[in-house]
Amino acid sequence: MNQTRLEQQIEFCREIDKEKMIGRQTYLSDGSRKENDAEHAWHMAIMTFLLCEYANEEIDVLKTIMMLLIHDLVEIDAGDTYAYDDAAKSTQREREVKAADRIFGILPEDQGTKLRALWEEFEACETAESRFARTMDNIQPLILNDASNGKSWVEHGVHLHQIMNRNKNTAKGSEILWEHMYNNMIRKHVDLGHIIND
Amino acid sequence: MNQTRLEQQIEFCREIDKEKMIGRQTYLSDGSRKENDAEHAWHMAIMTFLLCEYANEEIDVLKTIMMLLIHDLVEIDAGDTYAYDDAAKSTQREREVKAADRIFGILPEDQGTKLRALWEEFEACETAESRFARTMDNIQPLILNDASNGKSWVEHGVHLHQIMNRNKNTAKGSEILWEHMYNNMIRKHVDLGHIIND
Repeated sequence: MNQTRLEQQIEFCREIDKEKMIGRQTYLSDGSRKENDAEHAWHMAIMTFLLCEYANEEIDVLKTIMMLLIHDLVEIDAGDTYAYDDAAKSTQREREVKAADRIFGILPEDQGTKLRALWEEFEACETAESRFARTMDNIQPLILNDASNGKSWVEHGVHLHQIMNRNKNTAKGSEILWEHMYNNMIRKHVDLGHIIND
Repeated sequence: MNQTRLEQQIEFCREIDKEKMIGRQTYLSDGSRKENDAEHAWHMAIMTFLLCEYANEEIDVLKTIMMLLIHDLVEIDAGDTYAYDDAAKSTQREREVKAADRIFGILPEDQGTKLRALWEEFEACETAESRFARTMDNIQPLILNDASNGKSWVEHGVHLHQIMNRNKNTAKGSEILWEHMYNNMIRKHVDLGHIIND
Protein backbone atom coordinates (compact mmCIF):
# COMPACT_ATOMS: atom_id res chain seq x y z
CA MET A 1 0.00 0.00 0.00
CA ASN A 2 1.32 3.41 -1.07
CA GLN A 3 0.60 5.74 1.86
CA THR A 4 1.41 8.93 -0.09
CA ARG A 5 -1.02 7.96 -2.84
CA LEU A 6 -3.83 7.40 -0.37
CA GLU A 7 -3.06 10.66 1.41
CA GLN A 8 -3.23 12.58 -1.88
CA GLN A 9 -6.57 10.97 -2.65
CA ILE A 10 -7.99 11.81 0.79
CA GLU A 11 -6.68 15.38 0.49
CA PHE A 12 -8.51 15.70 -2.84
CA CYS A 13 -11.71 14.33 -1.26
CA ARG A 14 -11.39 16.98 1.47
CA GLU A 15 -10.67 19.76 -1.05
CA ILE A 16 -13.65 19.09 -3.31
CA ASP A 17 -16.00 19.56 -0.36
CA LYS A 18 -15.68 23.26 -1.22
CA GLU A 19 -17.81 22.74 -4.33
CA LYS A 20 -20.80 22.64 -1.96
CA MET A 21 -20.12 26.31 -1.25
CA ILE A 22 -20.24 27.41 -4.91
CA GLY A 23 -23.66 28.88 -5.59
CA ARG A 24 -25.55 28.84 -8.87
CA GLN A 25 -28.33 31.10 -10.12
CA THR A 26 -30.98 28.39 -10.30
CA TYR A 27 -33.51 28.08 -7.46
CA LEU A 28 -34.50 24.74 -5.97
CA SER A 29 -37.88 23.46 -7.13
CA ASP A 30 -39.66 25.09 -4.16
CA GLY A 31 -37.94 28.44 -4.73
CA SER A 32 -36.61 28.48 -1.15
CA ARG A 33 -32.95 29.04 -2.07
CA LYS A 34 -30.52 28.71 -4.95
CA GLU A 35 -28.74 25.41 -5.52
CA ASN A 36 -24.99 24.85 -5.43
CA ASP A 37 -22.63 23.07 -7.81
CA ALA A 38 -22.48 19.79 -5.88
CA GLU A 39 -26.27 19.49 -5.74
CA HIS A 40 -26.49 20.34 -9.44
CA ALA A 41 -23.93 17.64 -10.31
CA TRP A 42 -25.69 15.01 -8.19
CA HIS A 43 -28.99 15.80 -9.88
CA MET A 44 -27.55 15.49 -13.39
CA ALA A 45 -25.80 12.20 -12.61
CA ILE A 46 -29.13 10.55 -11.74
CA MET A 47 -30.80 12.20 -14.73
CA THR A 48 -28.11 10.73 -17.01
CA PHE A 49 -28.78 7.23 -15.74
CA LEU A 50 -32.53 7.62 -16.33
CA LEU A 51 -32.54 9.62 -19.57
CA CYS A 52 -29.59 8.13 -21.50
CA GLU A 53 -32.07 6.13 -23.60
CA TYR A 54 -32.83 9.44 -25.38
CA ALA A 55 -29.22 10.19 -26.36
CA ASN A 56 -28.77 10.74 -30.12
CA GLU A 57 -25.76 8.42 -30.06
CA GLU A 58 -24.95 5.53 -27.74
CA ILE A 59 -23.00 6.77 -24.70
CA ASP A 60 -20.78 5.31 -22.00
CA VAL A 61 -22.97 6.05 -18.98
CA LEU A 62 -20.27 5.85 -16.30
CA LYS A 63 -18.00 8.16 -18.27
CA THR A 64 -20.82 10.67 -18.77
CA ILE A 65 -21.78 10.55 -15.10
CA MET A 66 -18.19 11.08 -13.96
CA MET A 67 -17.81 13.96 -16.41
CA LEU A 68 -20.85 15.64 -14.89
CA LEU A 69 -19.85 14.91 -11.29
CA ILE A 70 -16.45 16.60 -11.71
CA HIS A 71 -17.00 19.23 -14.44
CA ASP A 72 -17.64 22.11 -12.04
CA LEU A 73 -14.75 21.42 -9.63
CA VAL A 74 -12.77 24.22 -11.31
CA GLU A 75 -15.36 26.64 -9.94
CA ILE A 76 -13.91 26.07 -6.44
CA ASP A 77 -11.25 28.58 -7.54
CA ALA A 78 -12.85 30.20 -10.60
CA GLY A 79 -16.38 30.71 -9.24
CA ASP A 80 -19.65 30.09 -11.05
CA THR A 81 -20.04 32.06 -14.26
CA TYR A 82 -23.71 32.86 -14.84
CA ALA A 83 -24.82 31.77 -18.30
CA TYR A 84 -26.06 35.28 -19.14
CA ASP A 85 -23.11 37.29 -17.75
CA ASP A 86 -21.05 38.18 -20.85
CA ALA A 87 -18.28 40.05 -19.00
CA ALA A 88 -17.53 37.13 -16.68
CA LYS A 89 -17.69 34.70 -19.59
CA SER A 90 -14.79 36.48 -21.36
CA THR A 91 -12.31 35.51 -18.62
CA GLN A 92 -13.89 32.17 -17.74
CA ARG A 93 -11.54 29.85 -19.67
CA GLU A 94 -8.36 31.41 -18.26
CA ARG A 95 -9.64 31.28 -14.68
CA GLU A 96 -10.80 27.70 -15.07
CA VAL A 97 -7.57 26.34 -16.60
CA LYS A 98 -5.60 27.74 -13.68
CA ALA A 99 -8.06 26.13 -11.28
CA ALA A 100 -7.80 22.78 -13.07
CA ASP A 101 -3.99 22.85 -12.72
CA ARG A 102 -4.25 23.27 -8.97
CA ILE A 103 -7.23 21.09 -8.13
CA PHE A 104 -6.57 18.04 -10.31
CA GLY A 105 -2.89 18.43 -9.35
CA ILE A 106 -3.72 17.37 -5.79
CA LEU A 107 -4.42 13.80 -6.98
CA PRO A 108 -1.87 11.11 -7.82
CA GLU A 109 -0.77 11.81 -11.39
CA ASP A 110 -2.70 8.98 -13.08
CA GLN A 111 -6.00 9.99 -11.50
CA GLY A 112 -5.40 13.72 -11.89
CA THR A 113 -4.74 13.22 -15.58
CA LYS A 114 -7.87 11.12 -15.97
CA LEU A 115 -10.20 13.61 -14.30
CA ARG A 116 -8.63 16.55 -16.09
CA ALA A 117 -9.11 14.77 -19.43
CA LEU A 118 -12.78 14.28 -18.57
CA TRP A 119 -13.10 17.99 -17.78
CA GLU A 120 -11.36 18.98 -21.03
CA GLU A 121 -13.60 16.59 -22.95
CA PHE A 122 -16.66 18.25 -21.41
CA GLU A 123 -15.33 21.68 -22.32
CA ALA A 124 -14.49 20.74 -25.94
CA CYS A 125 -17.89 19.05 -26.43
CA GLU A 126 -16.81 16.92 -29.36
CA THR A 127 -17.76 13.42 -28.17
CA ALA A 128 -21.09 11.66 -27.70
CA GLU A 129 -20.64 11.67 -23.91
CA SER A 130 -19.81 15.36 -23.68
CA ARG A 131 -22.68 16.30 -25.98
CA PHE A 132 -25.12 14.39 -23.78
CA ALA A 133 -23.52 15.85 -20.64
CA ARG A 134 -24.12 19.36 -22.05
CA THR A 135 -27.74 18.42 -22.70
CA MET A 136 -28.07 17.46 -19.02
CA ASP A 137 -26.29 20.66 -17.94
CA ASN A 138 -28.81 22.69 -19.94
CA ILE A 139 -32.05 20.87 -19.16
CA GLN A 140 -31.54 20.40 -15.42
CA PRO A 141 -31.97 24.14 -14.75
CA LEU A 142 -34.97 24.18 -17.11
CA ILE A 143 -36.68 21.57 -14.92
CA LEU A 144 -35.93 23.61 -11.78
CA ASN A 145 -36.93 26.92 -13.36
CA ASP A 146 -40.19 25.36 -14.45
CA ALA A 147 -40.83 23.96 -10.96
CA SER A 148 -40.07 27.30 -9.27
CA ASN A 149 -42.43 29.19 -11.58
CA GLY A 150 -39.57 30.74 -13.55
CA LYS A 151 -38.17 32.49 -10.45
CA SER A 152 -34.59 32.86 -11.70
CA TRP A 153 -35.67 33.92 -15.20
CA VAL A 154 -37.96 36.60 -13.78
CA GLU A 155 -35.32 37.93 -11.36
CA HIS A 156 -32.75 38.28 -14.15
CA GLY A 157 -35.23 39.47 -16.80
CA VAL A 158 -34.10 36.71 -19.15
CA HIS A 159 -35.08 36.95 -22.83
CA LEU A 160 -36.08 34.03 -25.04
CA HIS A 161 -33.15 34.65 -27.41
CA GLN A 162 -30.72 34.22 -24.49
CA ILE A 163 -32.23 30.86 -23.60
CA MET A 164 -32.21 29.76 -27.24
CA ASN A 165 -28.57 30.82 -27.57
CA ARG A 166 -27.55 28.98 -24.44
CA ASN A 167 -29.39 25.93 -25.72
CA LYS A 168 -28.07 26.00 -29.26
CA ASN A 169 -26.29 22.67 -28.66
CA THR A 170 -28.82 21.00 -26.37
CA ALA A 171 -30.35 19.02 -29.24
CA LYS A 172 -26.92 17.70 -30.23
CA GLY A 173 -26.97 15.42 -27.21
CA SER A 174 -30.65 14.53 -27.44
CA GLU A 175 -33.17 15.83 -29.97
CA ILE A 176 -36.00 14.15 -28.09
CA LEU A 177 -35.18 15.84 -24.78
CA TRP A 178 -34.64 19.26 -26.35
CA GLU A 179 -37.97 19.09 -28.21
CA HIS A 180 -39.76 18.07 -25.03
CA MET A 181 -38.15 20.88 -23.02
CA TYR A 182 -38.80 23.50 -25.68
CA ASN A 183 -42.42 22.56 -26.22
CA ASN A 184 -43.37 21.81 -22.62
CA MET A 185 -41.28 24.21 -20.58
CA ILE A 186 -39.77 27.09 -22.53
CA ARG A 187 -42.89 27.91 -24.58
CA LYS A 188 -45.05 27.62 -21.46
CA HIS A 189 -43.01 30.20 -19.56
CA VAL A 190 -42.93 32.56 -22.54
CA ASP A 191 -46.74 32.38 -22.55
CA LEU A 192 -46.79 32.95 -18.78
CA GLY A 193 -44.54 36.03 -19.19
CA HIS A 194 -41.68 34.55 -17.11
CA ILE A 195 -39.39 34.62 -20.15
CA ILE A 196 -39.37 37.84 -22.18
CA ASN A 197 -40.43 37.14 -25.77
CA ASP A 198 -38.42 38.84 -28.50
CA MET B 1 -41.37 8.00 -28.45
CA ASN B 2 -43.53 7.22 -25.40
CA GLN B 3 -44.65 10.60 -24.05
CA THR B 4 -46.03 9.18 -20.78
CA ARG B 5 -42.72 7.44 -20.06
CA LEU B 6 -40.75 10.64 -20.56
CA GLU B 7 -43.20 12.62 -18.42
CA GLN B 8 -42.84 10.10 -15.58
CA GLN B 9 -39.06 10.37 -15.81
CA ILE B 10 -39.14 14.18 -15.76
CA GLU B 11 -41.59 14.13 -12.83
CA PHE B 12 -39.14 11.91 -10.92
CA CYS B 13 -36.27 14.28 -11.75
CA ARG B 14 -38.36 17.14 -10.34
CA GLU B 15 -39.34 15.17 -7.23
CA ILE B 16 -35.82 14.14 -6.24
CA ASP B 17 -34.79 17.80 -6.09
CA LYS B 18 -36.27 17.65 -2.56
CA GLU B 19 -33.30 15.56 -1.41
CA LYS B 20 -31.32 18.83 -1.41
CA MET B 21 -33.54 19.94 1.48
CA ILE B 22 -32.81 16.91 3.69
CA GLY B 23 -30.19 17.92 6.23
CA ARG B 24 -27.57 15.68 7.81
CA GLN B 25 -25.64 16.11 11.05
CA THR B 26 -22.21 16.43 9.44
CA TYR B 27 -20.69 19.88 8.97
CA LEU B 28 -18.97 20.94 5.75
CA SER B 29 -15.18 20.95 5.97
CA ASP B 30 -15.10 24.65 6.97
CA GLY B 31 -17.75 24.12 9.68
CA SER B 32 -19.97 26.84 8.17
CA ARG B 33 -23.13 24.73 7.92
CA LYS B 34 -24.29 21.12 7.86
CA GLU B 35 -24.40 19.27 4.56
CA ASN B 36 -27.50 17.78 2.93
CA ASP B 37 -28.19 14.36 1.44
CA ALA B 38 -27.61 15.38 -2.19
CA GLU B 39 -24.22 16.91 -1.42
CA HIS B 40 -23.28 13.84 0.61
CA ALA B 41 -24.22 11.52 -2.27
CA TRP B 42 -22.27 13.59 -4.83
CA HIS B 43 -19.21 13.50 -2.61
CA MET B 44 -19.33 9.72 -2.15
CA ALA B 45 -19.82 9.08 -5.88
CA ILE B 46 -16.53 10.82 -6.70
CA MET B 47 -14.84 9.11 -3.75
CA THR B 48 -15.96 5.72 -5.10
CA PHE B 49 -14.38 6.42 -8.48
CA LEU B 50 -11.08 7.41 -6.83
CA LEU B 51 -10.91 4.91 -3.98
CA CYS B 52 -12.36 1.73 -5.56
CA GLU B 53 -8.80 0.40 -5.95
CA TYR B 54 -8.90 -0.24 -2.18
CA ALA B 55 -12.08 -2.37 -2.23
CA ASN B 56 -11.59 -5.81 -0.66
CA GLU B 57 -13.35 -7.40 -3.62
CA GLU B 58 -13.64 -6.21 -7.23
CA ILE B 59 -16.69 -3.98 -7.65
CA ASP B 60 -18.85 -2.71 -10.49
CA VAL B 61 -18.09 1.01 -10.18
CA LEU B 62 -21.16 2.34 -12.02
CA LYS B 63 -23.46 0.16 -9.94
CA THR B 64 -21.81 1.31 -6.71
CA ILE B 65 -21.99 4.96 -7.72
CA MET B 66 -25.67 4.71 -8.66
CA MET B 67 -26.40 2.93 -5.38
CA LEU B 68 -24.82 5.81 -3.48
CA LEU B 69 -26.47 8.51 -5.59
CA ILE B 70 -29.98 7.16 -4.92
CA HIS B 71 -29.72 5.44 -1.52
CA ASP B 72 -30.97 8.43 0.48
CA LEU B 73 -33.93 9.33 -1.76
CA VAL B 74 -36.26 7.62 0.73
CA GLU B 75 -35.33 10.35 3.21
CA ILE B 76 -37.39 12.82 1.15
CA ASP B 77 -40.36 11.30 2.99
CA ALA B 78 -38.72 9.50 5.91
CA GLY B 79 -36.21 12.19 6.94
CA ASP B 80 -32.58 11.69 7.93
CA THR B 81 -32.07 9.35 10.87
CA TYR B 82 -28.99 10.40 12.83
CA ALA B 83 -26.61 7.49 13.30
CA TYR B 84 -26.62 7.92 17.09
CA ASP B 85 -30.39 8.46 17.61
CA ASP B 86 -31.63 5.05 18.79
CA ALA B 87 -35.31 6.04 19.09
CA ALA B 88 -35.52 7.23 15.49
CA LYS B 89 -33.61 4.18 14.30
CA SER B 90 -36.31 1.83 15.64
CA THR B 91 -38.93 3.14 13.16
CA GLN B 92 -36.50 3.86 10.31
CA ARG B 93 -37.10 0.77 8.17
CA GLU B 94 -40.90 1.11 8.19
CA ARG B 95 -40.75 4.79 7.27
CA GLU B 96 -38.24 4.18 4.51
CA VAL B 97 -40.09 1.28 2.86
CA LYS B 98 -43.22 3.42 2.58
CA ALA B 99 -41.13 6.22 1.08
CA ALA B 100 -39.54 3.82 -1.43
CA ASP B 101 -43.00 2.69 -2.58
CA ARG B 102 -44.04 6.25 -3.35
CA ILE B 103 -40.82 7.73 -4.73
CA PHE B 104 -39.59 4.89 -6.94
CA GLY B 105 -43.24 4.41 -7.98
CA ILE B 106 -43.13 7.73 -9.85
CA LEU B 107 -40.80 6.21 -12.47
CA PRO B 108 -41.76 3.93 -15.37
CA GLU B 109 -41.95 0.43 -13.89
CA ASP B 110 -38.66 -0.93 -15.32
CA GLN B 111 -36.63 1.98 -13.97
CA GLY B 112 -38.47 2.17 -10.65
CA THR B 113 -37.82 -1.53 -10.11
CA LYS B 114 -34.14 -1.10 -10.97
CA LEU B 115 -33.55 1.82 -8.57
CA ARG B 116 -35.54 0.17 -5.81
CA ALA B 117 -33.47 -3.00 -6.18
CA LEU B 118 -30.30 -0.89 -5.84
CA TRP B 119 -31.69 0.69 -2.67
CA GLU B 120 -32.66 -2.72 -1.23
CA GLU B 121 -29.21 -4.07 -2.11
CA PHE B 122 -27.61 -1.16 -0.22
CA GLU B 123 -29.86 -1.81 2.77
CA ALA B 124 -29.18 -5.57 2.85
CA CYS B 125 -25.42 -5.04 2.49
CA GLU B 126 -24.69 -8.54 1.21
CA THR B 127 -22.84 -7.80 -2.05
CA ALA B 128 -19.37 -6.44 -2.82
CA GLU B 129 -20.87 -3.19 -4.18
CA SER B 130 -23.09 -2.56 -1.18
CA ARG B 131 -20.26 -3.35 1.25
CA PHE B 132 -18.03 -0.80 -0.47
CA ALA B 133 -20.90 1.72 -0.64
CA ARG B 134 -21.32 1.37 3.15
CA THR B 135 -17.61 2.00 3.55
CA MET B 136 -18.01 5.25 1.59
CA ASP B 137 -21.12 6.17 3.61
CA ASN B 138 -19.11 5.76 6.82
CA ILE B 139 -15.80 7.33 5.87
CA GLN B 140 -17.14 10.42 4.06
CA PRO B 141 -18.42 11.94 7.35
CA LEU B 142 -15.11 10.99 9.03
CA ILE B 143 -13.25 13.10 6.45
CA LEU B 144 -15.60 16.04 7.05
CA ASN B 145 -15.54 15.68 10.83
CA ASP B 146 -11.76 15.63 10.73
CA ALA B 147 -11.68 18.74 8.51
CA SER B 148 -14.13 20.65 10.76
CA ASN B 149 -12.12 19.85 13.88
CA GLY B 150 -14.66 17.28 15.08
CA LYS B 151 -17.45 19.88 15.26
CA SER B 152 -20.38 17.46 14.96
CA TRP B 153 -18.81 14.93 17.38
CA VAL B 154 -18.24 17.63 19.98
CA GLU B 155 -21.77 19.06 19.63
CA HIS B 156 -23.34 15.63 20.12
CA GLY B 157 -20.85 14.44 22.76
CA VAL B 158 -20.12 11.33 20.71
CA HIS B 159 -18.29 8.44 22.41
CA LEU B 160 -15.66 6.26 20.77
CA HIS B 161 -17.79 3.12 21.25
CA GLN B 162 -20.59 4.74 19.22
CA ILE B 163 -18.21 5.45 16.35
CA MET B 164 -16.77 1.94 16.53
CA ASN B 165 -20.26 0.44 16.56
CA ARG B 166 -21.37 2.50 13.58
CA ASN B 167 -18.19 1.46 11.77
CA LYS B 168 -18.37 -2.24 12.61
CA ASN B 169 -18.82 -3.07 8.91
CA THR B 170 -16.61 -0.36 7.38
CA ALA B 171 -13.67 -2.76 6.98
CA LYS B 172 -15.89 -5.25 5.13
CA GLY B 173 -15.82 -2.95 2.09
CA SER B 174 -12.18 -1.95 2.45
CA GLU B 175 -9.76 -2.97 5.15
CA ILE B 176 -7.17 -0.50 3.87
CA LEU B 177 -9.49 2.49 4.07
CA TRP B 178 -10.83 1.55 7.49
CA GLU B 179 -7.32 1.13 8.91
CA HIS B 180 -6.27 4.48 7.49
CA MET B 181 -9.34 6.23 8.89
CA TYR B 182 -9.02 4.61 12.31
CA ASN B 183 -5.31 5.34 12.68
CA ASN B 184 -5.23 8.80 11.11
CA MET B 185 -8.58 10.31 12.00
CA ILE B 186 -10.46 8.55 14.78
CA ARG B 187 -7.46 8.07 17.10
CA LYS B 188 -6.35 11.65 16.46
CA HIS B 189 -9.69 13.09 17.56
CA VAL B 190 -9.82 10.85 20.61
CA ASP B 191 -6.41 12.27 21.56
CA LEU B 192 -7.67 15.80 20.87
CA GLY B 193 -10.71 15.17 23.12
CA HIS B 194 -13.23 15.66 20.29
CA ILE B 195 -14.39 12.05 20.67
CA ILE B 196 -15.07 10.87 24.23
CA ASN B 197 -12.84 7.91 25.07
CA ASP B 198 -14.47 4.99 26.91
